[in-house]
Amino acid sequence: MSSIWGENIKISIFGESHGKAIGVVIDGLPSGIELDIEHIKKEMMRRAPGRNNVSTPRKEGDNFDILSGYFNSKTTGTPLTSVIFNTSQKSRDYEATKSILRPSHADYTGYARYAGFNDYRGGGHFSGRLTAPLVFAGAIAKQILQKKNILIASHIKSIGVIEEESFNPVNIDSSIIKGLSDKEFSVLDDDKGREMIEYIVRVKEQEDSVGGVIEGVILNVPVGIGTPIFGAVESKLAQLLFSIPAVKGVEFGMGFDMTKSIGSLMNDELYICDGDIKSYSNNNGGIIGGITSGMPIIFRVAIKPTPSIGKKQRTVDISKCVNTELSTKGRHDPCIVPRAVPVVEAAAALVLLDLMMEKGGLL
Amino acid sequence: MSSIWGENIKISIFGESHGKAIGVVIDGLPSGIELDIEHIKKEMMRRAPGRNNVSTPRKEGDNFDILSGYFNSKTTGTPLTSVIFNTSQKSRDYEATKSILRPSHADYTGYARYAGFNDYRGGGHFSGRLTAPLVFAGAIAKQILQKKNILIASHIKSIGVIEEESFNPVNIDSSIIKGLSDKEFSVLDDDKGREMIEYIVRVKEQEDSVGGVIEGVILNVPVGIGTPIFGAVESKLAQLLFSIPAVKGVEFGMGFDMTKSIGSLMNDELYICDGDIKSYSNNNGGIIGGITSGMPIIFRVAIKPTPSIGKKQRTVDISKCVNTELSTKGRHDPCIVPRAVPVVEAAAALVLLDLMMEKGGLL
Amino acid sequence: MSSIWGENIKISIFGESHGKAIGVVIDGLPSGIELDIEHIKKEMMRRAPGRNNVSTPRKEGDNFDILSGYFNSKTTGTPLTSVIFNTSQKSRDYEATKSILRPSHADYTGYARYAGFNDYRGGGHFSGRLTAPLVFAGAIAKQILQKKNILIASHIKSIGVIEEESFNPVNIDSSIIKGLSDKEFSVLDDDKGREMIEYIVRVKEQEDSVGGVIEGVILNVPVGIGTPIFGAVESKLAQLLFSIPAVKGVEFGMGFDMTKSIGSLMNDELYICDGDIKSYSNNNGGIIGGITSGMPIIFRVAIKPTPSIGKKQRTVDISKCVNTELSTKGRHDPCIVPRAVPVVEAAAALVLLDLMMEKGGLL
Amino acid sequence: MSSIWGENIKISIFGESHGKAIGVVIDGLPSGIELDIEHIKKEMMRRAPGRNNVSTPRKEGDNFDILSGYFNSKTTGTPLTSVIFNTSQKSRDYEATKSILRPSHADYTGYARYAGFNDYRGGGHFSGRLTAPLVFAGAIAKQILQKKNILIASHIKSIGVIEEESFNPVNIDSSIIKGLSDKEFSVLDDDKGREMIEYIVRVKEQEDSVGGVIEGVILNVPVGIGTPIFGAVESKLAQLLFSIPAVKGVEFGMGFDMTKSIGSLMNDELYICDGDIKSYSNNNGGIIGGITSGMPIIFRVAIKPTPSIGKKQRTVDISKCVNTELSTKGRHDPCIVPRAVPVVEAAAALVLLDLMMEKGGLL
Repeated sequence: MSSIWGENIKISIFGESHGKAIGVVIDGLPSGIELDIEHIKKEMMRRAPGRNNVSTPRKEGDNFDILSGYFNSKTTGTPLTSVIFNTSQKSRDYEATKSILRPSHADYTGYARYAGFNDYRGGGHFSGRLTAPLVFAGAIAKQILQKKNILIASHIKSIGVIEEESFNPVNIDSSIIKGLSDKEFSVLDDDKGREMIEYIVRVKEQEDSVGGVIEGVILNVPVGIGTPIFGAVESKLAQLLFSIPAVKGVEFGMGFDMTKSIGSLMNDELYICDGDIKSYSNNNGGIIGGITSGMPIIFRVAIKPTPSIGKKQRTVDISKCVNTELSTKGRHDPCIVPRAVPVVEAAAALVLLDLMMEKGGLL
Repeated sequence: MSSIWGENIKISIFGESHGKAIGVVIDGLPSGIELDIEHIKKEMMRRAPGRNNVSTPRKEGDNFDILSGYFNSKTTGTPLTSVIFNTSQKSRDYEATKSILRPSHADYTGYARYAGFNDYRGGGHFSGRLTAPLVFAGAIAKQILQKKNILIASHIKSIGVIEEESFNPVNIDSSIIKGLSDKEFSVLDDDKGREMIEYIVRVKEQEDSVGGVIEGVILNVPVGIGTPIFGAVESKLAQLLFSIPAVKGVEFGMGFDMTKSIGSLMNDELYICDGDIKSYSNNNGGIIGGITSGMPIIFRVAIKPTPSIGKKQRTVDISKCVNTELSTKGRHDPCIVPRAVPVVEAAAALVLLDLMMEKGGLL
Repeated sequence: MSSIWGENIKISIFGESHGKAIGVVIDGLPSGIELDIEHIKKEMMRRAPGRNNVSTPRKEGDNFDILSGYFNSKTTGTPLTSVIFNTSQKSRDYEATKSILRPSHADYTGYARYAGFNDYRGGGHFSGRLTAPLVFAGAIAKQILQKKNILIASHIKSIGVIEEESFNPVNIDSSIIKGLSDKEFSVLDDDKGREMIEYIVRVKEQEDSVGGVIEGVILNVPVGIGTPIFGAVESKLAQLLFSIPAVKGVEFGMGFDMTKSIGSLMNDELYICDGDIKSYSNNNGGIIGGITSGMPIIFRVAIKPTPSIGKKQRTVDISKCVNTELSTKGRHDPCIVPRAVPVVEAAAALVLLDLMMEKGGLL
Repeated sequence: MSSIWGENIKISIFGESHGKAIGVVIDGLPSGIELDIEHIKKEMMRRAPGRNNVSTPRKEGDNFDILSGYFNSKTTGTPLTSVIFNTSQKSRDYEATKSILRPSHADYTGYARYAGFNDYRGGGHFSGRLTAPLVFAGAIAKQILQKKNILIASHIKSIGVIEEESFNPVNIDSSIIKGLSDKEFSVLDDDKGREMIEYIVRVKEQEDSVGGVIEGVILNVPVGIGTPIFGAVESKLAQLLFSIPAVKGVEFGMGFDMTKSIGSLMNDELYICDGDIKSYSNNNGGIIGGITSGMPIIFRVAIKPTPSIGKKQRTVDISKCVNTELSTKGRHDPCIVPRAVPVVEAAAALVLLDLMMEKGGLL
């Protein structure tokens, strides 16, 4: 299925970039949860374009309208639906070049998948714009988790070759966590952040694009969440993280670097601390055997350079079946990483909420 | 759910390392498929321990018994069940030390997940032994796909810091593919393979362990498989690959390296080739917008060093709630990577089969 | 999950009777299907209230708005969303009596299920109004099936104790089938229909309500659809039919009457007819062993008397926790059966479409 | 999918009547549950054939072997697998007549569904024998529910036209409930039971068969279980009940009879009783709006006459594509109803357990 996800809560995302609306149905939310609408708006704003000089100047109307499942400022427990009507789309921008396939966009694969009947305008259902409903749903998940003291944050670990330090995997101050979501450019080290922005600006001047890595953390997760084999926490997180457009890699803890080291250095040795079992290190990123260990969950997500670039590229005109060239002028992000930060967090929040609801029931 | 996976075919894996049996129920297989039992046995043997001096000398009885869904040498279309009875387990090995948590094994997380009622012997349901039924199911998936000319192979890209070349992402000779599954140590370059084996031997002498990276390829996949957002091919593959014990990272195409480059170098430019649309490069690893592009699917999987090592480690005795030390003597793999190769391929085959069955139906 | 259904197509229904909107997301539709919007409107109109003197005089705004998945008059293959904005609700009608539980309505069970946070106005998510999006989705399913010559129809088999003849289970003229959907009161025998209407009118005069039985048929279903055990066609149909409010019984073929007869009279004996295998009788209602037999699928659905009646009833005021009395004045149907006809057909169409998409895939 | 069921617990049933084994994998059981193996055996014995003169004299080896998920007499929380090896099957009985389709058996539909590759011996995967693993799983569900004081029982409401009284829907003595499962022939009134047995004997003498109705009850279910629309308790129960071979009708509370009465007589009026809300009547069978009301859940299941009869029947030889005749001699039940009693209860127990696990989670 293209657009339904989840086991204990289910989200159903719909819409196309230039259709009437995009939105999400969230099924399985507990009833009686008072929503902090301002927080949701803030999360949506973190993803929205046009906030600064390193993102597209398009103004997207990310004003959501809750159609169901919300009554007297609280969730009802029945499906909660949120719709964002598309308002500022200039569909004519796309009409003229609709048969020119944009390289590394889903133009060709979407065409093939849907036999040419997909809405090609602005990527249609494949558009990054479809992450807006995901952020909406994730904001609600964050609010529910926060009541259990579970905190989710992320920072831009790298842009191109400019890289900052990682989270301390065993000891993360929750004030840092809370501060990150207030930053316009989510880095731990603002000096590094300025370097990254500078790097993006230079790439943009070359009519090119650049990617980066986002590192996420989930704090205060109880030990024992998840299930072995197919329900591994890594499986669940990776599945949703790879649903975010432009993600091409996901790793947990020390990830790919673990493969270069040895067991005696990578194993997370255990000790008793005030009756709890903790580990001296956290190379496994808080997940062992697919189950949470009680240490912070740490993961990194590789985001490729935005496919839309001003530079001329070779491609195909699918209506004429001939080779041609394309240079994408106009409004697009030279680097999608900053706007992807809240999307990554939303995905993490939804996965964790779904996992937390798995255990127990009335029995 | 811990142990059921799939949408169009569903596999249900069961068993514990030292219980009576492990096995798999495969639901949704087409009827009338003649199984090549010898090929399945060969795939099982590729995963089995004790084949050479870099794996554990344990002899596991991986002889499977098909209990249902198979009649007159063909699949019936009803659930096919395969069971492997456990025969050589020495459970007493584990009884004495059952409360000593092995660091980076699922001993602690499994204990927490199941409130101490899990079968702790040899990792129980968390054991790598549970990948045997996965390989069984994957072998059947491979046979079905091969009739559609879809080939799956993988090689050991690296062991520790010893690394060999990658697959050529745009032009892979199918003879190389076919040869890889016959190799005892699956590398493209046998000289590099000898270096890797030597590296493992030296690590073993130090009573330590090492990990590595497996690179997989799926050849001849039609364009247009998969669905956007949650049904992205990357999502589906990553979900199952992370279900394999010890996997800590997954990337597609150029993966994490894409984040360091720029759009104009990473975009896969398109051209017409004999009426088909192809790309000059394949940095996206055959998947764009979550949908197959018709180029080879390329992915890499990071496998951490085996947690079981002879060196002394700090840990906890959970029954006494005290700190203690542990050194794991006896039968274990200094490097699980070679035995993980057929497991990774099995996972890839199952995902692709599931995806291929998605489209169409009777309509 | 409350509100997501399906395996190969999935529908996600949302909304409350007096909220902003109700609607449905349909995921998994094939792409390129040209929708007959007029036909959808006609199906919606068959369910809508206020059409005649035996239904509620309320005017519901069942004008739907397709928000996604529909482009250039064809389905795109991505989720198709339809929304019906609520316009004529008089919520104040309900506010005054919100704590008086209406007997046999979901007022008490919904309150208990959602800890009092459910939208109580007009039944909220439990309202029969939520069948409007089901009819929308079913109309699309009908159109897809009709291209395969599969026809779905139903008639009012009985109202109270007034009963008409059943479908001929072995030989149904497709002209009868086509005519039924054009009738305002869907009966095979219009004289009996007038008797039924008269019966409803008399019940209404007594400020009471009455139920009835709807008999459905699905014509031209290929043999071999469905799967044994949990995927039985009866299981699938019953599951969705019991999702329709007020349904309290479902039977197939001769149903409960089969239990009173004997095997030699109830078995459907087989014969060859022009190379096809047919049965002389069709007591099993076209389904044997959970699989379609190629004979018409016949089922009957019991619909209870509408709970809303003018007569005084004993009940409870849940806010004060005291016994009280209630008589529901105002707009409600004395008999919901006529309006349930298109809903039953929609459910049947969705089940059949889902089942038809199960077999095969690309393999 | 043919053979996987459930949301919060999942059961995967496999096997063919004359294959090596049948069995079930149960995924999602809570850990630490001590199983009463003797109770499971007793439940299996209630379903087993050959207990008396009204069932087939075949001796089926329903001795189960638990392969996984069970350690130190308790559930581990990982998948619990039970296998019943087939021992007494006489496959040659079927070989000679394998192409003669038995009317109203799944011979023809199974052949069509699986393109002739299904295991035809004794019905294969369609055999009533596959209900044995369902009874196994249901027995465990019953044990878990009983700890919550939830009791499930059923009685034979009718055999052919011989009918006994129904359960009192508002006031059921739990001693009656407990006694029913000890009876060899589960009726409330043993005199009526003798009449029913006599009726079966006479039908058997005529080489014919007869069906009946089983009425089930679930006592002490909390109010507020289930979800509206697709997750209605009636939907869930009906879905699983129709998965039992030979079931052709399901109704709740007053069921089809409700359609003949009027709202003022069928509505269940409410009152306060010691702080709880109860209803004077229980015509809705304990489910309103798809949600449990706290009153006993009451349902009835129609079971058709066994298709296997000694009398000569017209049918088709599918290998020669000609009309022929068949009379089934040998071992078969003249009435399957008594053996279906524990199967119906097992289905009810599994549904209720699954529903009870839905609510809540860790949140």
